[in-house]
Amino acid sequence: MLETNGQRLWDSLMAMAEIGATANGGSSRLALTDEDAAGRSLFVQWAEAENLTISRDAIGNLFARRAGRDDVPPVVIGSHLDTQPKGGRFDGVLGVLAALEAVRTLNENEIETVAPIEIANWTNEEGARFTPAMLGSSVFTGAMTLDDGLAREDANGQSVAESLQATGEAGATPLARKYDAYFEAHIEQGPVLEDNDKTIGVVTGGQAIRWLDVRFTGKAGHAGTTPMPVRRDALFAASAAITAVEEYVAGIDGLLATVGEFHVAHGSRNTIAADVHFTLDLRHPEDDVVDRAIDTIRARFDERLPSRDVDYDLSLHWRSPALPFDETCVRHVRDAAQGLGYAWQDIISGAGHDAFHLAKHCPTAMVFIPCADGLSHHEAESIEPEHAKYAADVLLNAALARAGHV
Amino acid sequence: MLETNGQRLWDSLMAMAEIGATANGGSSRLALTDEDAAGRSLFVQWAEAENLTISRDAIGNLFARRAGRDDVPPVVIGSHLDTQPKGGRFDGVLGVLAALEAVRTLNENEIETVAPIEIANWTNEEGARFTPAMLGSSVFTGAMTLDDGLAREDANGQSVAESLQATGEAGATPLARKYDAYFEAHIEQGPVLEDNDKTIGVVTGGQAIRWLDVRFTGKAGHAGTTPMPVRRDALFAASAAITAVEEYVAGIDGLLATVGEFHVAHGSRNTIAADVHFTLDLRHPEDDVVDRAIDTIRARFDERLPSRDVDYDLSLHWRSPALPFDETCVRHVRDAAQGLGYAWQDIISGAGHDAFHLAKHCPTAMVFIPCADGLSHHEAESIEPEHAKYAADVLLNAALARAGHV
Repeated sequence: MLETNGQRLWDSLMAMAEIGATANGGSSRLALTDEDAAGRSLFVQWAEAENLTISRDAIGNLFARRAGRDDVPPVVIGSHLDTQPKGGRFDGVLGVLAALEAVRTLNENEIETVAPIEIANWTNEEGARFTPAMLGSSVFTGAMTLDDGLAREDANGQSVAESLQATGEAGATPLARKYDAYFEAHIEQGPVLEDNDKTIGVVTGGQAIRWLDVRFTGKAGHAGTTPMPVRRDALFAASAAITAVEEYVAGIDGLLATVGEFHVAHGSRNTIAADVHFTLDLRHPEDDVVDRAIDTIRARFDERLPSRDVDYDLSLHWRSPALPFDETCVRHVRDAAQGLGYAWQDIISGAGHDAFHLAKHCPTAMVFIPCADGLSHHEAESIEPEHAKYAADVLLNAALARAGHV
Repeated sequence: MLETNGQRLWDSLMAMAEIGATANGGSSRLALTDEDAAGRSLFVQWAEAENLTISRDAIGNLFARRAGRDDVPPVVIGSHLDTQPKGGRFDGVLGVLAALEAVRTLNENEIETVAPIEIANWTNEEGARFTPAMLGSSVFTGAMTLDDGLAREDANGQSVAESLQATGEAGATPLARKYDAYFEAHIEQGPVLEDNDKTIGVVTGGQAIRWLDVRFTGKAGHAGTTPMPVRRDALFAASAAITAVEEYVAGIDGLLATVGEFHVAHGSRNTIAADVHFTLDLRHPEDDVVDRAIDTIRARFDERLPSRDVDYDLSLHWRSPALPFDETCVRHVRDAAQGLGYAWQDIISGAGHDAFHLAKHCPTAMVFIPCADGLSHHEAESIEPEHAKYAADVLLNAALARAGHV
């Protein structure tokens, strides 16, 4: 199988990291700022050196196209160049520059493909400057209207439309153009590959996600004058409930539960808590498992709470269904990893990616590589240079298989 | 046994409640404000009508003395007239006006006592305007220096000294004068008497109190990409720890545990909590039991936490030793309740009272009556008029037994 040039890819990653470089070795290129524009400009310069055709759409998504033999929908490969305020050097960037490296390799090997191959850089994937995250791919695929996307404002009240105007990053390429397929390479942002000694994750899809709000209501009382048996302590009830959730989840393979926020209303050292609210994030590759988890959690609360004389309310804040990737595209990724002899495993994506929007638009798959200690959204984000090359190799061969070698 | 005039006491309570009356039936007389000064002034008017001698000390504690046959240290009865910002009509006020009612009853029965009987109204018991609570009795008994007490400032930067100047409530009566004994009547501020169908609580002392800070430190991680077995979730660890505390405490008679505050540093729905802090308030009538509880809690944490790879720190924020009241004074209260034929029980005071400072200065005891649903520090605080009379009756007979009927 064809292999990319690891040193050239690493040099490009390091050159891009210089734009918006932070004191602690990370990068800061918030979407549609001067730094992001400078990063895009460097990418365009590299892409033009490869004779790629540059275009932009109305939400600022940036494309670099390598013509195919036929004028058919392209096989698209890419990710995003924007970062968190104190982001790492690889989240998103790897996917765009691995795509560039794949095209460079096609060029130097003078390989013609049947379908065009196009690199995509999606606008505002991070959601750090404008909400929501994945805004560019959202508007491209129609999950969000263009007007809505353009109207989003940052914390200073500057809109996406104004920022596109200021950076000159908007263009006329139609939204929702037909794609043959989409492949995205990304760092895992979790510890699974590293823990399993694998260098390639063949991503089979995204998890089902449920965000729940849980509120316990008891009765306030004086910490010194209220005997334990008559208390209606909302915090003790909430703690026991969280422990019950933890115990249940531990018995279901692949089910994830996170209580990330916990608030006591009018909290005071010597007052029994009457009003406690916490968040619960539940995830699993299958919708059924998550929905059954919610039912079971409710049942356990119903079973255990009456003796406490504490009320609870469990409400769904956000539901994101499981999203399996296209089986053919996944197989292209798996075959590439296998053919190249890299240690691979199937993996579910825990985090969100532009690929999830694209998956509703065209056949899609992703490839992951490990990042040290699973750390991401952090200046210390770190990968092995060799793994970056593996990502580009797999991406190249999967895209080539899909686009067709003339 | 002598009985007081229940209607007269209730009328006085209702008249005092008019000063600083709140929309929802409570009272608002923050210490040394115009409202507090007006309340004190009404009390002085009533006391002077009974030929009592008014005096004040340097921290604004207000005294009304009924002479005895002998010029010996007085038997002091009282409490406080200041309230919470939205306080009830009985917390503190009952103790001062029951004392007044006791003296009125002595006067109308022309009873001479061997020792003088003196009513005390302690400055800033609530701690709502100036910290700490029980400031006046604290300075009187020497637990706090006068300079420290005078320098305390409210939220607007006005000091106790300035407020005493403005209200004219400071005087020259010496601090730390010798007392023969101190008796205080108060609402229970808890549900025990009501639940046990008792109308008088013979208070045998104050509980041992420990305020602890507990911090759990784990590791942050992405809610979607971090498998459960490798997580170091500080919040799950804290919840399990709190449940362990609750289970342990349930097995120890009279031990109280309250987690009133709970904070997740940088809490976010989809981030595993790395840093959780909660408070723990532990109380029991005996110091040994509370200290053993802390040791046991540490041992249980040490036993269970290693499997979670989460660190904890448990530190003592405040230690208040158990304070048994004087056995003779307690017996006077018990004998009065028994002699009057009221349904009584011994009880421990869960809340703090001026009587705890006085107990270090002279033989001391307290009498409790029920308050509806244990509710206090609330505009809806409520008692039965009949119970107010019982409080005054017991206070009167206990003080009389101590002071000696000529």
